[in-house]
Amino acid sequence: MTPIETNQALLDGLREIVGDDGVLTTMGDRLVYECDGYVLEKQTPDIVVLPSTRAQVVGVVNRCREAGVPFMPRGAGTSLAGGTVAVGGGVMIALTRMNQILEIDLRNQFAVVEPGVVNIWLTQRLKGTGFHYAPDPSSQGACTIGGNVATNSGGPHTLKYGVTVNHVLGVEMVLPDGNVVTFGGPHADPVGYDLTGLAVGNEGTFGICTKAWVRLSRDAQAVRTMLGIFETVDDASHAISDIIAAGIVPAALEMMDHLMLQAVEEAYQFGFPLDAGAVLIMEADGLEAGIDEVAARIEEIARANNARDVRRARDESERLLLWKCRKKAFGAIGRLSPSYCCQDGVVPRSKIPEMLRFMSDISAKYDIRIANVFHAGDGNMHPILLFDERDAEQTQRVVDASHEILSECIRLGGSVTGEHGIGVEKIAFMDRLFTDDDLLAMRWTRAVFNPDNICNPAKLLPSGGHCAEVSLPATRRAT
Amino acid sequence: MTPIETNQALLDGLREIVGDDGVLTTMGDRLVYECDGYVLEKQTPDIVVLPSTRAQVVGVVNRCREAGVPFMPRGAGTSLAGGTVAVGGGVMIALTRMNQILEIDLRNQFAVVEPGVVNIWLTQRLKGTGFHYAPDPSSQGACTIGGNVATNSGGPHTLKYGVTVNHVLGVEMVLPDGNVVTFGGPHADPVGYDLTGLAVGNEGTFGICTKAWVRLSRDAQAVRTMLGIFETVDDASHAISDIIAAGIVPAALEMMDHLMLQAVEEAYQFGFPLDAGAVLIMEADGLEAGIDEVAARIEEIARANNARDVRRARDESERLLLWKCRKKAFGAIGRLSPSYCCQDGVVPRSKIPEMLRFMSDISAKYDIRIANVFHAGDGNMHPILLFDERDAEQTQRVVDASHEILSECIRLGGSVTGEHGIGVEKIAFMDRLFTDDDLLAMRWTRAVFNPDNICNPAKLLPSGGHCAEVSLPATRRAT
Repeated sequence: MTPIETNQALLDGLREIVGDDGVLTTMGDRLVYECDGYVLEKQTPDIVVLPSTRAQVVGVVNRCREAGVPFMPRGAGTSLAGGTVAVGGGVMIALTRMNQILEIDLRNQFAVVEPGVVNIWLTQRLKGTGFHYAPDPSSQGACTIGGNVATNSGGPHTLKYGVTVNHVLGVEMVLPDGNVVTFGGPHADPVGYDLTGLAVGNEGTFGICTKAWVRLSRDAQAVRTMLGIFETVDDASHAISDIIAAGIVPAALEMMDHLMLQAVEEAYQFGFPLDAGAVLIMEADGLEAGIDEVAARIEEIARANNARDVRRARDESERLLLWKCRKKAFGAIGRLSPSYCCQDGVVPRSKIPEMLRFMSDISAKYDIRIANVFHAGDGNMHPILLFDERDAEQTQRVVDASHEILSECIRLGGSVTGEHGIGVEKIAFMDRLFTDDDLLAMRWTRAVFNPDNICNPAKLLPSGGHCAEVSLPATRRAT
Repeated sequence: MTPIETNQALLDGLREIVGDDGVLTTMGDRLVYECDGYVLEKQTPDIVVLPSTRAQVVGVVNRCREAGVPFMPRGAGTSLAGGTVAVGGGVMIALTRMNQILEIDLRNQFAVVEPGVVNIWLTQRLKGTGFHYAPDPSSQGACTIGGNVATNSGGPHTLKYGVTVNHVLGVEMVLPDGNVVTFGGPHADPVGYDLTGLAVGNEGTFGICTKAWVRLSRDAQAVRTMLGIFETVDDASHAISDIIAAGIVPAALEMMDHLMLQAVEEAYQFGFPLDAGAVLIMEADGLEAGIDEVAARIEEIARANNARDVRRARDESERLLLWKCRKKAFGAIGRLSPSYCCQDGVVPRSKIPEMLRFMSDISAKYDIRIANVFHAGDGNMHPILLFDERDAEQTQRVVDASHEILSECIRLGGSVTGEHGIGVEKIAFMDRLFTDDDLLAMRWTRAVFNPDNICNPAKLLPSGGHCAEVSLPATRRAT
């Protein structure tokens, strides 16, 4: 069989649809797409296509299907679980040219965006209107809303405002058979099955998302942001439990540990105390009425849990700097290490101290430094394992350490991903989280949309193992 | 073919599983199950089975499948859309004996319940713990959590706290092939496809729900409940828009119109002014800090929209009486009319006044009295059409008037159901709300779980029309 990258009929067909400059074939061009934020698995796609319209996506999908070549979507490539790696090769459909905000309707509180719109652009566009787009992953300056929809992204404010699925009203998708379907829409009330909710988090295994209707949220009237400084992560963890137990729903509760603090302080000079065991960013928002009482109560609880100090952000610029330190923490890691692997495990909130102690043991056992910065209010932990990917032996230790950490999350009653998705990284865990029947139901669910598994194969669901691969008959739409 | 009700082998098999007293066969016994809260379509099931355990459900499902007899689940039969009618006959699996609260875990804020647990029982059981189960349909004194899961029920507090899907962490289901699957669970974070979210709202078309993990919510520290009295529904509608526009998220915003007020006042003697055009029940909740400021702001907005009076509930007993009036409004309708049809349409909030005027015109056109009591904050309208079902001609006028009302909801950018589901009542609208491709995606989604459409056929999805019925090959699990 002709190798895909030299399949002239396919290349000609694709160029006819998206133009010469929309098809990347040289190794230099394609190398950019060999991996995403997860650097432990790499594979250069055979062809990269950059469509600008839905019609072009339909054309590209049809050509790939006709040629029997797998394809997969890609946004900004910020996945931390290898969700956009072209496992086994194929045609990568990069959606960065579909980057228009198509409509903003403030009266009905929704926007319509193309998948390649960068998350932060929408909130920037809304500046001054009193509205914003709530999901705010730390990578929001780079990641796309299409990618957020694919992985059901969270962020620091998930604790109060929910994950992406809570803010997506509708999705338009090009299915692998070339048909375009629309689930939900601007005024979506759930009639029929909630296919919008199902599509959010599909990790590109159903088809190519070409449009999304998203909910706009009203800006909070008042915000109070505080930094709590603790001697130990245990104290910080107990403060979190007590804040939640007091019936307060903070807008955010984020923890950074000692090692993370070093890196962030060096990068951004916020003035973090370098001898602290952990800091908490604690934010309350809501109506002006009563907000100071809530902030005071949070402060009181932090102090009751041995906080050395609790500082309120003096003004908006100090608040923004504090959030910059948190959101760009991953960037600061570059000062500590050439590579990192950011894990994404979840444990019940009450198990955070135990999990942090476990990570400390794992760090010693594998001789791998681990920094922690995470959504403590949700129990969603992000241990960052520092290493050098040029060192194969060290890299293997990172993989092993990651697996032990994720296994411990399961043992403690949690899960192996809170918001980054399964991607390629965590497929091996699916058998441990689900029964064969549960996985079969998921495979059949995929087959509804992607019966031949030609769209983003090898993602999310294990392909073999206990259950054989399932493929619907090609006649499924014959009626 | 042997009629189902005299199929001795099937009857013997069912009795073997659930015992003699668990199988109802006499017309007298079965007549109880001929309809639910939607009285316009009736069909007596051939057999009614009352299982007490999951194992019995598996056995019943297996026997039905082997006999080629359709079956369908039923909770308390409070559906207002005919969701539990045995269209075409078959075996009704009534889940009222599976009524145990299996576990309450306050630390991790979840409960595990059987499907026949009545909604209010859970909150009653939690009394004194500081927690409650948030979804509170008006029928909560009778409806079951299994039924709430099937229809994704809402309620007055949906405005702030969301519908059932926001409070369901996991679902256990017996599929039509007899396999038991579990989606989600106590600490569910969404890993893999969100099949829990998909299962909520399936209207019994996937299988028989035998267990649910539900989220427990902390009681609000403070509640302020107010009654706003308005001369016109227009004024009340504008007050709603202004409250939402002020950035307030009330716990509830419920409207009752003039006709509804008459019935409710006669039944419960709350002291509603009988000459008012409409009243609003306006509730704010949250932390004690600031709650009075929020309540004052709501009151101010109501007065700015010509409220004749705004009264705060003086104490908890007055508050409970006010809610009793609202939640038992449907019961009070019995004083006005022998039968009623409660519709469930949604319009954008801004279209409420227009929609109420339309209903007034429809009332005149068809000479059918229409009372209104509804979740105004959500734009979820519940016009109640009063009639006498013994009068066939009048009944037809109710059907026609309902269709006009729902069509107008669609025209105004809304939907034909906010929380009651499609059932049998609204299937004809599905073709108007969805394209053929969208409906095919839904049919294939059903086929994942219920490939032969033997479980609750003729519900939710149109069976023919533009798209032919789809049936997966029987070998789908052969691998």
